[in-house]
Amino acid sequence: MKFEVLITGGSIRVPPYVAAPYCTVALLSDEKRMVLIEPGSFPAWEALERSFKEKGLKAEDITDLVISHVHMDHIFCSIFFKNAVVHVHEKYIERNYSSFGPIAGLFYPMVLNSWREVHPIKDGDVLFDCVKVFHTPYHSSDHVSLLIQTENMGRVFMPGDICYSRIEYFEYMKGYKKDDVAKFLKTISKDCDWIVFTHDLPMKVVG
Amino acid sequence: MKFEVLITGGSIRVPPYVAAPYCTVALLSDEKRMVLIEPGSFPAWEALERSFKEKGLKAEDITDLVISHVHMDHIFCSIFFKNAVVHVHEKYIERNYSSFGPIAGLFYPMVLNSWREVHPIKDGDVLFDCVKVFHTPYHSSDHVSLLIQTENMGRVFMPGDICYSRIEYFEYMKGYKKDDVAKFLKTISKDCDWIVFTHDLPMKVVG
Amino acid sequence: MKFEVLITGGSIRVPPYVAAPYCTVALLSDEKRMVLIEPGSFPAWEALERSFKEKGLKAEDITDLVISHVHMDHIFCSIFFKNAVVHVHEKYIERNYSSFGPIAGLFYPMVLNSWREVHPIKDGDVLFDCVKVFHTPYHSSDHVSLLIQTENMGRVFMPGDICYSRIEYFEYMKGYKKDDVAKFLKTISKDCDWIVFTHDLPMKVVG
Amino acid sequence: MKFEVLITGGSIRVPPYVAAPYCTVALLSDEKRMVLIEPGSFPAWEALERSFKEKGLKAEDITDLVISHVHMDHIFCSIFFKNAVVHVHEKYIERNYSSFGPIAGLFYPMVLNSWREVHPIKDGDVLFDCVKVFHTPYHSSDHVSLLIQTENMGRVFMPGDICYSRIEYFEYMKGYKKDDVAKFLKTISKDCDWIVFTHDLPMKVVG
Repeated sequence: MKFEVLITGGSIRVPPYVAAPYCTVALLSDEKRMVLIEPGSFPAWEALERSFKEKGLKAEDITDLVISHVHMDHIFCSIFFKNAVVHVHEKYIERNYSSFGPIAGLFYPMVLNSWREVHPIKDGDVLFDCVKVFHTPYHSSDHVSLLIQTENMGRVFMPGDICYSRIEYFEYMKGYKKDDVAKFLKTISKDCDWIVFTHDLPMKVVG
Repeated sequence: MKFEVLITGGSIRVPPYVAAPYCTVALLSDEKRMVLIEPGSFPAWEALERSFKEKGLKAEDITDLVISHVHMDHIFCSIFFKNAVVHVHEKYIERNYSSFGPIAGLFYPMVLNSWREVHPIKDGDVLFDCVKVFHTPYHSSDHVSLLIQTENMGRVFMPGDICYSRIEYFEYMKGYKKDDVAKFLKTISKDCDWIVFTHDLPMKVVG
Repeated sequence: MKFEVLITGGSIRVPPYVAAPYCTVALLSDEKRMVLIEPGSFPAWEALERSFKEKGLKAEDITDLVISHVHMDHIFCSIFFKNAVVHVHEKYIERNYSSFGPIAGLFYPMVLNSWREVHPIKDGDVLFDCVKVFHTPYHSSDHVSLLIQTENMGRVFMPGDICYSRIEYFEYMKGYKKDDVAKFLKTISKDCDWIVFTHDLPMKVVG
Repeated sequence: MKFEVLITGGSIRVPPYVAAPYCTVALLSDEKRMVLIEPGSFPAWEALERSFKEKGLKAEDITDLVISHVHMDHIFCSIFFKNAVVHVHEKYIERNYSSFGPIAGLFYPMVLNSWREVHPIKDGDVLFDCVKVFHTPYHSSDHVSLLIQTENMGRVFMPGDICYSRIEYFEYMKGYKKDDVAKFLKTISKDCDWIVFTHDLPMKVVG
């Protein structure tokens, strides 16, 4: 399948007033499927609109959503894709979202209830014959990373929020951090062509 | 009724990537009613949550929403207040929101359809015996400004997005701009104690 | 001369904590001159760095800076261009910058004192045989707008902060505002190919 | 000495356009000294101005600056404090700042050269009889963390950018990360009353 970054993620945090992180959105497509990895969040919804207009895409064309983990900055825009099957780690179901707080306790269920069909995924699964799933519960219990064999960009590694920016990546690669995440990143990095970060520009890996 | 600013509005625009303005949210309340002017937007939803927690408020306690005009940065958080009557200028109904674009055309109807009951308002109306409505169609055709007689802060003027910041206000007062907005602002400013801006800190008016 | 937008301006305001507007930066160049209109501000300094790297430019290559008005979001990055002549409206000298406050009173003089040579400009001046200057004191007393005859983009209109975004522009064109700014914008708009906004994406004018 | 947070740090990143993180600024003072930990960055300079006005402080009153590490979002506002001695880890001198790039290579030296007097610090040092220094080179080679015995807030721990937010802190405390940073954080956390993060709200530690 063909891979393309539609929106480069970023983060806007001005405590205690504004919390508006938003994740990278990529389109993975062939003749049969239009997959969004991931749907993304509110601060970039107008950019998503512009991108869809430019490509002549409609929200109803999206067949699948793949979600790295159930945090609002990754799932919000899923409300627009009514026809999509949502691929998300099976652990997501265990959390009691309605206990999250007076607003969050309404917001999370509202977004989750908008999902037409959920396909629970787990470590080792392969989606669409080209997306390998790794369960990486170092940011949240339901967090997954992805390694995608693409037609046009070689092997694309999407670590998710366990390593969401270039700075973090270099901290790991320089050995400042030496935990399980470090081991995982080093192993997969050796064998990929691009790293697509959730909250930063993609990076070409130079062998 | 008692008036209190819950969230001070602001604006985050990084064209072409991020458009995340968010408006000021105020609570107007007495024994019978809990009114939000206005519900506000996504970038501040966690601040709204914190504010509700601190006050022991639940979303279902809100009886009314007053909306200056139907733009997403003013209406988004209305989706959380299922029991509220929405007070909005009657002109809002005339626009064809579903033609707005591939995402906006879904987003606006989704928010508007979440409103349980709409109370159309017009120039000269008085809400809750203390909120005077002015139709001020200089930012959008359905735009209203408000002048509120409060128990605790005297007369509070909320011009809305026709004059959304202190800088804009001073540009008008200095005479840089001389249009109908200027006349309106000068007339009401003479007779109020506070100006509460949609995207800036409130300002005490010194007679 | 050839005209090129290096950085699209935007604005980040989260009152009372963060005030980080930043203006559009354009390069106007031929064999003799490398002109920045305008130098821009801190939030985009890394983008300026990336742009200079991509073009093989050095800060010392910049021969001239044109400044729409002396506000920090337009002048900050002037500190990097030690060889440049600064073209700014003659009124800028009348303000007492050191009275601005405990930090601003240091900050403005620091930036202004970094200027090697100032060329005061006024209404009707033409710079580099192609940049026409209009004194438009509707945002600050020293504010200018520019109309540039370019080699590659036809006539480029830069109104400055008297009309800094597409939304503002359309408010004027629809007739919501009817002051001197409206008249000026309508007159120049009729006769240009592009409008380059200080805090928004450029817009092609369709005759 | 008395400790007070003047500005709560945050972060604004919209790759590739805007990079505007800004760190927390605290004031540590007694009759003899006015110390800023740390000077902070541009996006919050107007908030710093407001804070100085409210307290009747002048920039020249600041006697000392303590810096966690030499990154622009921590050092920029040092340019305003001409009388201050700058306390920074001795490793900072080893880096060749002028090689950083066409703009950064000018910007870093400009800020560093504005420092009147540098006092190099190292692991184990105690400043002003109350600030204990820990060399924690997990974010940059010159990075330090601080533990401060205050008069008014008990023991205040400032980990710096090795753990800059509450979310990161909880990831460490839950055991998601198990490296040297985790050990350091757990050890010091046991014995402090407040954790003051560089890019988030302070947190009271509940024994």
